[in-house]
Amino acid sequence: MSITVVGSVAYDSIETPAGRRDRCLGGAATYFSLSASFFTDVRVIAVVGEDFGRRQEAVFQARNIDTRGIEHTAGKSFFWEGSYLENLNEAKTHNTELNVFAAFEPKIPDAYRDSDFLFLANIDPVLQRRVREAMPDVKLVAGDTMNYWINDHRPALLEVLKGLDILLINDTETRILGGSTNLVQAARAVMALGPRSLVVKHGEYGATLFYSSTPKSKGTEFRTPAMLLEEVVDPTGAGDSFAGGFFGYLASQPELTPAAYRSAMHYGTVMGSFACERFGTERLQQLTRKEIDKRFQLLHELTHID
Amino acid sequence: MSITVVGSVAYDSIETPAGRRDRCLGGAATYFSLSASFFTDVRVIAVVGEDFGRRQEAVFQARNIDTRGIEHTAGKSFFWEGSYLENLNEAKTHNTELNVFAAFEPKIPDAYRDSDFLFLANIDPVLQRRVREAMPDVKLVAGDTMNYWINDHRPALLEVLKGLDILLINDTETRILGGSTNLVQAARAVMALGPRSLVVKHGEYGATLFYSSTPKSKGTEFRTPAMLLEEVVDPTGAGDSFAGGFFGYLASQPELTPAAYRSAMHYGTVMGSFACERFGTERLQQLTRKEIDKRFQLLHELTHID
Repeated sequence: MSITVVGSVAYDSIETPAGRRDRCLGGAATYFSLSASFFTDVRVIAVVGEDFGRRQEAVFQARNIDTRGIEHTAGKSFFWEGSYLENLNEAKTHNTELNVFAAFEPKIPDAYRDSDFLFLANIDPVLQRRVREAMPDVKLVAGDTMNYWINDHRPALLEVLKGLDILLINDTETRILGGSTNLVQAARAVMALGPRSLVVKHGEYGATLFYSSTPKSKGTEFRTPAMLLEEVVDPTGAGDSFAGGFFGYLASQPELTPAAYRSAMHYGTVMGSFACERFGTERLQQLTRKEIDKRFQLLHELTHID
Repeated sequence: MSITVVGSVAYDSIETPAGRRDRCLGGAATYFSLSASFFTDVRVIAVVGEDFGRRQEAVFQARNIDTRGIEHTAGKSFFWEGSYLENLNEAKTHNTELNVFAAFEPKIPDAYRDSDFLFLANIDPVLQRRVREAMPDVKLVAGDTMNYWINDHRPALLEVLKGLDILLINDTETRILGGSTNLVQAARAVMALGPRSLVVKHGEYGATLFYSSTPKSKGTEFRTPAMLLEEVVDPTGAGDSFAGGFFGYLASQPELTPAAYRSAMHYGTVMGSFACERFGTERLQQLTRKEIDKRFQLLHELTHID
């Protein structure tokens, strides 16, 4: 099954205790698609400026990612600058320049219209909804969002949630969106807004899946800790890489069983851990499926009693 | 195998978002021994004042816990007052009265001397060491400590660590004691101080085991998330209840295999979760082994792919 993803393709300047990188390739759609490309065909919808050239294009092509939906316009690409000097779990944003992203109007290439899966990365919920409505035939829709949209664009976000099968957000976002400090109660409230399944990402502590196969069924829950990493070089994009591994694995499965969702949680964890090992997308660019499956096995040993 | 535990038996006044309890039975040795008593024979060494009467004694007796090592002296028992109003993961201490605990000199009843396992709950490392040295024949020694001892009584604590097989502490304590913000590197540094195994408790996010069967072997790691709780009434004693479940289960096993350590991590998680469900020791007092094993099975389902 192929996945279409809509989101940001950007440049990031990042500082962490391990060092600094200026204007490296980033953006949620970039991390997501690189990560998911190890499991299935991926097609990207985004907008970039004149600073996005052949070298950046080649990063996607090396992973056979379809970039016909990346629109090139006059101006500069989305730019983010941040650091993790005090806390590796939370970025401190120093600068955000929307640039060409400010006028982004997602256009869906005809060649993308037979995609089975759709991922709405963290962008304006108005755009998320537009893409969702333009692709009514997809079988499974997942999405991400952030505090800014939850707090200041709630009505638009609520419309998006109605059309989502799976929402992937972090702890704090879950508690704010669900209106409870208790994770279970917050998750239940979030799922009442639309998504049948919710993946709550806990950063260095792993992730929790709240899953129900139908709106009325009791459902199931699954928790995984994170990998143990001897060094976290740069956590930028770990959440989007998790989403890519999770959704990419699901797209590769013949049937969406609870067991497939559980394995998807582990593949998401594995991909998030790789993303942290080097700056930007460096590690994802040099990864092999063999390394992924080896780490999947390691995570199994780390979490299973026998 | 029987366990001797030395630590505090105390009164706690606790306020949480769920309500308030004044002067309920508490203390690390209390939580630990109630929890461990579901798995093996437990013997307590502690000191209490005149306010500790038959009703409190009965709590231990109901679980067949040997209280001959609880010394009764003139004065009042250790008292702690705290709240969790802003953050259920971290207590805010309002008042601590050492009372009879200030002059605590642990005395080991002869009947305790054939104990196989020893648990040194969080008390002055000078006392931990004294008890350890007075029981040279125990087969396995585990212990707990806290930031205060790590920061201000480090030389005494280092002496204790040399005699420990297993240390159970939380994230922050591990990073401070090990001198690294990276958990893996901090854990390695802590284990170089003595304990062959280290259990790092992550509160609502679970726990990590760093285990090595011999000082020179490569060892193994195991991570478990916490249970999903719909309501956390009072997290007081959750860490000590975890330790009781973990160490109690180990003491009940014919052989200390890596698989036994893994199951022990899950039993610890289960006992910690029960402790949070009501104020003080209320839930542990009314628990059954059947409920424990049922929740152990739930945790298995929550964390295992198949």
